[in-house]
Amino acid sequence: MTARPRGPVLDHGNALHEGLGGAGVDPKRLEGDLADRFRAAHAAVEERRRTGEMGFFRLPGDEELAARSRAAADDLGRDVDALVVIGIGGSALGLAAIRDALLPAGWNELDDEARRGRPRLYILANPDPDTLTALLPRIDPERTLFNVVSKSGTTAETLAQLMVIWSGLEAALGADGLPRRLVVTTSSGRGPLAELAASRGLRLLPIPEAVGGRFSVLSPVGAFPASVLGVDIDELLMGAREAAARSAHPTLAENPAGMLATLLHLADTELGHPVQLFMPYADGLRGFAYWAQQLWAESLGKALDTEGRLVETGPTPLPAFGATDQHSILQLMMEGPRDKVVVFLAPEAPRRDIVVPPVLRDYPALSYLGGHTLFELLQGERRATAEALRRAGRMNMTITFERLDARSLGGLFMLFQIAVAYAGALYGVDPLDQPGVELGKVLTGGLLGRSGCPDPEIPPVASRWRM
Amino acid sequence: MTARPRGPVLDHGNALHEGLGGAGVDPKRLEGDLADRFRAAHAAVEERRRTGEMGFFRLPGDEELAARSRAAADDLGRDVDALVVIGIGGSALGLAAIRDALLPAGWNELDDEARRGRPRLYILANPDPDTLTALLPRIDPERTLFNVVSKSGTTAETLAQLMVIWSGLEAALGADGLPRRLVVTTSSGRGPLAELAASRGLRLLPIPEAVGGRFSVLSPVGAFPASVLGVDIDELLMGAREAAARSAHPTLAENPAGMLATLLHLADTELGHPVQLFMPYADGLRGFAYWAQQLWAESLGKALDTEGRLVETGPTPLPAFGATDQHSILQLMMEGPRDKVVVFLAPEAPRRDIVVPPVLRDYPALSYLGGHTLFELLQGERRATAEALRRAGRMNMTITFERLDARSLGGLFMLFQIAVAYAGALYGVDPLDQPGVELGKVLTGGLLGRSGCPDPEIPPVASRWRM
Repeated sequence: MTARPRGPVLDHGNALHEGLGGAGVDPKRLEGDLADRFRAAHAAVEERRRTGEMGFFRLPGDEELAARSRAAADDLGRDVDALVVIGIGGSALGLAAIRDALLPAGWNELDDEARRGRPRLYILANPDPDTLTALLPRIDPERTLFNVVSKSGTTAETLAQLMVIWSGLEAALGADGLPRRLVVTTSSGRGPLAELAASRGLRLLPIPEAVGGRFSVLSPVGAFPASVLGVDIDELLMGAREAAARSAHPTLAENPAGMLATLLHLADTELGHPVQLFMPYADGLRGFAYWAQQLWAESLGKALDTEGRLVETGPTPLPAFGATDQHSILQLMMEGPRDKVVVFLAPEAPRRDIVVPPVLRDYPALSYLGGHTLFELLQGERRATAEALRRAGRMNMTITFERLDARSLGGLFMLFQIAVAYAGALYGVDPLDQPGVELGKVLTGGLLGRSGCPDPEIPPVASRWRM
Repeated sequence: MTARPRGPVLDHGNALHEGLGGAGVDPKRLEGDLADRFRAAHAAVEERRRTGEMGFFRLPGDEELAARSRAAADDLGRDVDALVVIGIGGSALGLAAIRDALLPAGWNELDDEARRGRPRLYILANPDPDTLTALLPRIDPERTLFNVVSKSGTTAETLAQLMVIWSGLEAALGADGLPRRLVVTTSSGRGPLAELAASRGLRLLPIPEAVGGRFSVLSPVGAFPASVLGVDIDELLMGAREAAARSAHPTLAENPAGMLATLLHLADTELGHPVQLFMPYADGLRGFAYWAQQLWAESLGKALDTEGRLVETGPTPLPAFGATDQHSILQLMMEGPRDKVVVFLAPEAPRRDIVVPPVLRDYPALSYLGGHTLFELLQGERRATAEALRRAGRMNMTITFERLDARSLGGLFMLFQIAVAYAGALYGVDPLDQPGVELGKVLTGGLLGRSGCPDPEIPPVASRWRM
């Protein structure tokens, strides 16, 4: 653990009037009405934090919960070749973000030594038979740890895959062998998976009741598999605590999460930028961008505000990846409708770097690259893209942080979770619920004959059209 | 090769007035003004197809070009453990789509036998040193085939990584060894990579001049690596030819690509749905969705129309994945702003399937799943999600096709390419250019000291803000 005097840096010059030739945000408002508005949002969030309704605030300080993840990893996660996590949405995206950021690229292709004896990782999110049939022959039940993750314990995609795995495990190990090989992460004490764990003697790692799926990465949902994989979860939690401390103040100018929420809320609701790109320039942040997309979309995409009025609100979060997507959606960002705001994300220093060697000197189209490092190139592309967008009058901002490690990742998780809580208050919606996904679950249940789910009576299709 | 009497089916009932309770498209217009509008778009595209400007139309019938890819694969692609493709954007996305759709999941983790002796595949798109440093120690220059792909031959991200590889290859094999191990795919006869290939005796696979990066998947850009990997490129091209034949008619009701383009153009420009989700329910179509995103964004996101008038137009294509993203952005799709249209994509039958075994009968929350197959579950989720959106008055449509294989994938590539050509005509923009990405390239060049690129003079940041 090294001393880390400061958190990320937000460069929002390209979101303000001066930088954009009059577009973007009037900076005076950040000390005026926007500061007032934020103060009210802060108070609303503070109240829900205090009552414990927003359970994610408590996770970084919950030593006992962290210890349970660590103990389970120590007891069951040694001497296994593979860790198979069965979970979808909030039960998978946080772990994928941790994997992408903190394990070497291509982890599953590394040999045991390069993995420091830690297992390969498979995340079974989508119940696609192509994916599962390709995986099953390659895992040895005797050498694999399974972790089924569902807050409610009723997620159809997860339970169906669990049943396939269960049947295979029983056949290979007998019913007695299951507790060594299957860990259940679910809401403490409630729901079908909790019952299953209790009756079959499976280890249960609890998700606190007040922690929803998309806010659960710092609970055992993320911490247990991370610990099995050798990630230092103390560093993750410390980074999260530091970020929470930095984003506690009711004054907008002193609250980073508040500034992020305020600028993005304003971009959507007043400046006409509902499409919000989270665009890291680091392959390690791919998973983080998808995690943030879920956090934003499910928390802010709401039909009703907290007073029950129809608002149908919420920005559209769009993950993008630099420099790759400069060759995909940058054209649209530069020249298309002015309905977008970009949040660039990048470390200030590489973990490792590669100097482009001075070969092919006779080719000026190549030789200018010699002597630069790949990190310089990648960061140069980021700065150039931000500047090109600025010159085109397109609002963007950049979050940089010292380097990508467990501590900074924990900080980013917490920064974005707190920001979305503030954003919920600014939009006037409840960021903790997701009522809109229920109908699809009931209809699916009806199609599959689940008790309590009526036949969905999907009308016959009138307009099928042969292509 | 099996007889295949028909192409995909478009179900657009959930995009029409009746299905949506008056929202969506008035079906009478499909035989009225929209048919007229399409007839003009068809004529404009037909003209550019005839002159050869739209070179992608000619690729499926270019036997000679396909033969060059196959011959290069036969000569150089045998007895290698790894194929490393260095390319970004249109030089990478089509191949990733082919990989995801046509190779077994987890290809690189399969043993030689399961890969039928074909190599592992690495696509070096982003110049992230983390990714390259993790890969380099694991590839043996003597057993690896490299393919550098850049239409212009000037792509900085690609050339920088090529120089790293070049230096390593020269050290390991000597300059004489390079032609056995490095294939160049670039514009025929022009540009730095073509010069390099000529002077160093490297095999060059040409990209026809009139084929842009995002339209190049059926050129050697996709066909050569696909052939090395054992994909039947004849089937890909046949599927593309069949799709082109199905989408040739000037009458809207008889032109599938025209119908797709017309509905999506109308959704954006008249119905207020600029966010357009491409949402496959098949893990194998992940890469296809990203390929389609680039195709849509770069082709339609334009500042100027073909008359030079400022229009700043283009929809925002958003890849999403069922059932996974039902647990991420479905909440926003169901309840947020009505600015979205969803295009579901799915095969009608699985390639393989898994029956959920009837275990855990005492748990009704699980037992109802027993006896169903995973494919039934996945397709049930898709139908339920489409129906839930319909009931919420949210426009969506579904493209299904018999099964996912090389022939259907080739057909999907062509269907979408033709559709975007029509959409360009409907928007009144040129779908073949991408002028908006040039500024970023010049600024990057300036930062790296490339000759001809001035110092970018990025203004000092006024608003750096410590988080």
